[in-house]
Amino acid sequence: MDYKSIEISNKYKLFSEQWQPKVIAEMNDYQFKIAKIKGEFIWHSHKETDETFIVIKGEIEIEFRDGFVKIKEGEMFVVPAGVEHKPKSKKESQIMLIEPKGVVNTGEEDSNNLTAKNDVWI
Amino acid sequence: MDYKSIEISNKYKLFSEQWQPKVIAEMNDYQFKIAKIKGEFIWHSHKETDETFIVIKGEIEIEFRDGFVKIKEGEMFVVPAGVEHKPKSKKESQIMLIEPKGVVNTGEEDSNNLTAKNDVWI
Repeated sequence: MDYKSIEISNKYKLFSEQWQPKVIAEMNDYQFKIAKIKGEFIWHSHKETDETFIVIKGEIEIEFRDGFVKIKEGEMFVVPAGVEHKPKSKKESQIMLIEPKGVVNTGEEDSNNLTAKNDVWI
Repeated sequence: MDYKSIEISNKYKLFSEQWQPKVIAEMNDYQFKIAKIKGEFIWHSHKETDETFIVIKGEIEIEFRDGFVKIKEGEMFVVPAGVEHKPKSKKESQIMLIEPKGVVNTGEEDSNNLTAKNDVWI
């Protein structure tokens, strides 16, 4: 059989829109999603699940109600379930998210503008 | 509160042994483990779960009974549950594994030599 690895960085060349996670791999009921982000997202949380951020390129910040974390290229952070957070990035950054299939990017918040279509593979 | 990102590459400076995954982060009941690998591992499988490999540095190969996949720096691959595989690396490579907590590195195979202690954080 012909097995192919997933070239993470190359996948970012296939789209330009920001804040719209695309699925590049699945492990059990979890998905690996990549996104380009710039500017500020909205405050939101995911009640049922932790959410992992890995920065592939650039540098992002995640704001919490009681602090913040900077995540640079090659670094990661796991946002615990239920914790309100607001991701942001001064310049466009490339991130990878790992979370269960079906998690909505805007969490419990209703935002037609920013809520991304789920399960979009690239 | 003081939040800290996890500097993935720096974590490899904290140990030298090969084929002994160390936990650097947890997301729900999943763990992110890093390992240095060189040479050939044994044939094994994980009946209950997929297993994700991300190559942080170097280049590895995973052999299957019916083929193989090369995974270079910045690339990833998900080995499906139950599929026999044998990871190997000509030169020492640095990998990150993502899988449910409690998964034994040698799968169903009994290998005192290669079976690593589980849940070792670094």
